[in-house]
Amino acid sequence: MDEDFAQWYTDVVKKADLVDYSTVRGSMIIRPYGYALWEYIQQALDKKIKESGHENVYLPLFIPESLLQKEKDHIEGFAPEVAWVTHGGEEELAERLCVRPTSEVLFCEHYSKIIHSYRDLPKLYNQWGNVVRWEKTTRPFLRSLEFLWQEGHTCHATAEEAEEETLKMLDVYASVCEEYLAVPVLKGQKTEKEKFAGAKRTYTIESLMHDGKALQTGTSHHLGTGFAEAFGIQFTDKHGNMQHVHQTSWGITTRLIGAMIMVHGDDRGLVIPPRIAPVQLQIVPIAQHIEGVLDAAYQLKDDLHVVCRTAIDASEKSPGFKYNECEMRGIPLRLEIGPRDIERGEAVVVRRDTGEKQSLPFGKLSTAIPQLLEDIQRSLLESAKIQRDEKTQNVFTLDEMKQSLHTDPGFKRAMWCGARECEEQIKEKTGATSRCIPFEQERLSEQCVCCKKESHHLVFWAKAY
Amino acid sequence: MDEDFAQWYTDVVKKADLVDYSTVRGSMIIRPYGYALWEYIQQALDKKIKESGHENVYLPLFIPESLLQKEKDHIEGFAPEVAWVTHGGEEELAERLCVRPTSEVLFCEHYSKIIHSYRDLPKLYNQWGNVVRWEKTTRPFLRSLEFLWQEGHTCHATAEEAEEETLKMLDVYASVCEEYLAVPVLKGQKTEKEKFAGAKRTYTIESLMHDGKALQTGTSHHLGTGFAEAFGIQFTDKHGNMQHVHQTSWGITTRLIGAMIMVHGDDRGLVIPPRIAPVQLQIVPIAQHIEGVLDAAYQLKDDLHVVCRTAIDASEKSPGFKYNECEMRGIPLRLEIGPRDIERGEAVVVRRDTGEKQSLPFGKLSTAIPQLLEDIQRSLLESAKIQRDEKTQNVFTLDEMKQSLHTDPGFKRAMWCGARECEEQIKEKTGATSRCIPFEQERLSEQCVCCKKESHHLVFWAKAY
Repeated sequence: MDEDFAQWYTDVVKKADLVDYSTVRGSMIIRPYGYALWEYIQQALDKKIKESGHENVYLPLFIPESLLQKEKDHIEGFAPEVAWVTHGGEEELAERLCVRPTSEVLFCEHYSKIIHSYRDLPKLYNQWGNVVRWEKTTRPFLRSLEFLWQEGHTCHATAEEAEEETLKMLDVYASVCEEYLAVPVLKGQKTEKEKFAGAKRTYTIESLMHDGKALQTGTSHHLGTGFAEAFGIQFTDKHGNMQHVHQTSWGITTRLIGAMIMVHGDDRGLVIPPRIAPVQLQIVPIAQHIEGVLDAAYQLKDDLHVVCRTAIDASEKSPGFKYNECEMRGIPLRLEIGPRDIERGEAVVVRRDTGEKQSLPFGKLSTAIPQLLEDIQRSLLESAKIQRDEKTQNVFTLDEMKQSLHTDPGFKRAMWCGARECEEQIKEKTGATSRCIPFEQERLSEQCVCCKKESHHLVFWAKAY
Repeated sequence: MDEDFAQWYTDVVKKADLVDYSTVRGSMIIRPYGYALWEYIQQALDKKIKESGHENVYLPLFIPESLLQKEKDHIEGFAPEVAWVTHGGEEELAERLCVRPTSEVLFCEHYSKIIHSYRDLPKLYNQWGNVVRWEKTTRPFLRSLEFLWQEGHTCHATAEEAEEETLKMLDVYASVCEEYLAVPVLKGQKTEKEKFAGAKRTYTIESLMHDGKALQTGTSHHLGTGFAEAFGIQFTDKHGNMQHVHQTSWGITTRLIGAMIMVHGDDRGLVIPPRIAPVQLQIVPIAQHIEGVLDAAYQLKDDLHVVCRTAIDASEKSPGFKYNECEMRGIPLRLEIGPRDIERGEAVVVRRDTGEKQSLPFGKLSTAIPQLLEDIQRSLLESAKIQRDEKTQNVFTLDEMKQSLHTDPGFKRAMWCGARECEEQIKEKTGATSRCIPFEQERLSEQCVCCKKESHHLVFWAKAY
């Protein structure tokens, strides 16, 4: 893992049966174990999205070229990476259709038809679906031609409300990442250079992977009135005046699974946080040929499946082989039960994260296991925070940043003047990009790390996925 | 509705806010109220799919042309209706990619890599997603360029197991249609002419709409070993011999929403069966400007939302206008509460299906309402069955079939010899297609309705969507 992290990642996603490859270049097959992870993430997020007043909708997969071109910045940003449908059946199309890389323009067209009055606002919509971006180099979950995601699109009467929504959804993302994936996030704003094509402001949550590279785990955009002007989304306000709506959009993707893998995984494979683990406890019978062992194991499974997601491996493989598989698949708890345990009325429970083993009387399992799972969930987040903080340093010069990125990859905190040229120069000289201007600001020095002119922002820099 | 059913349908889906149109030809926008219906159908079906041992996966949206061509019958059936991606970003692709119209070939390619031994069988996979078929004429939910669906794909060691799976999933579909959508279905087998491209046998559930036209509500295919041979999906059996797997595939789509609309709707709009109704009870306050009315209405909402999905319309519209909206949207129950009701400690509850009104004391609402909802659910299915049976006739000659289809559109039961020519002639002369050879056979006569030769099958014929 520490020798070749990229190879470790590729091996683990394959060996843990999360994905498989196909002849479709750059696309992945999400296998049952990987898809179940996505379903748990979806459930958690969908609940929060609905509780905060949003409604799910579904808009078309295809976008006519003329529609995509209506907002100038947006098309500039996306044109290089869209897939084009030119033929339907046997016929050539009069107008090319792009396979949606994101759905702002479709939502805008719809909004321009259904929004007329302040009474129609806010409109709080969300969509679950697939999108396509024509990426050159791809990696499972992290960057693929097609990926699954949700995209929120909202319209508001005022800029303040849109800003509030943008920040609220960033908080929702942060809570899903931390509470479910146990992946700590840094909240902040993207620089002008890194913001979404067509947005006024982009907020982001950024996470640090085991190898010290950053991953953007979610973004929330305040779109302002630019799209509304391009698409004519207007409403009559309380005073009878016509106004353009203020919009937001926000999304998270299957990439979160990649973040979870790269934050918690180790040399033995995945480590899955209990709340999203498809299997939370795996029972491994020892000497299962001996009478009574399998019966006791299945009895435990029946007893425990009411308190957690329990599975049993009663195959003919050796216990050692089964242990390895449990570990590779990152199952939070393993329960071993053999003839001697049965005599004593106990079972051995092993934590995936720490390797700790303990014998527990049968009668205590149903209370002890949920507690252990909660403890694992909490401690995974804590260790991830510690790891991230250890990999975060202050730097004051470009040389120092470059050196530090080389010897201690991670977040580099440095002051910035705000000029795009400095940002570009930093990238060119160190390979790091600005990850965000964190909400929690601090004045490390008076000078920009690059040009030495007056600094205005503390920025987190890192090499990134 | 009875004057122009097609127009009624188009009006209702729009006025009840189920869908909207976009500039994407033939594609629809599924609005919150429509998408919520789909989510309830999904939940019900996904639960049944998982309980019967299937796992969800996700395969790519694009299929390389060469992969689609591997199974000859399959490509012949689908080539005329696929959308082709020819460009990615700025580049022309070396090989065209089709946007999946269905995913058999992708599943087959995957299966050929992950199935090796009898121990790997059965493989029971399901996928939720979108597919595209380049239809010329489209209608919301019933036939659209893109639609949402689930597609099951399974592999088995024997033909018997595959047959059992095919029939089992047809039963699952039938139970979702009848128990949730209150849409009665007829189970049977498709003729050779009507079966799925590449299948050995196709089973279907067929429903009859209000206008007497049939709708195929779900299909389940026994694929045999044709795909397995084309894709080399082989396993070593218990005796060490190489065998091809036996496959199935099955799917239902957003079209089910169309079926629900066309079976239960009436001149006042939708009638939604309670189990899938996004709102089961709508509270309408009467004279809401009078003190105490809104308080009482909100109190009822709080009390009742624990027993059913409750909403309140406290807008400034008139009660009459609100009643009409409730009816248009097909909300199963409406609760009216005004000053006099409050004095008496009662509320008026109105059924959408029968229009029945009753006054119920506040204290009884939380037990009476769930019972009423169950009763509506049951009676919708019953009336739909009665309607269907009334629209089902036996016919013995082609002239009789033609005449009967004209005066009493519906299912026409008639004997058939089994020859494709007769099937084609019946379609040509009457406009009806064979909907299915029902599992429950009966010998109405010795002669084929068309050629008068010996009959072998009772077939249900109808004009269809």
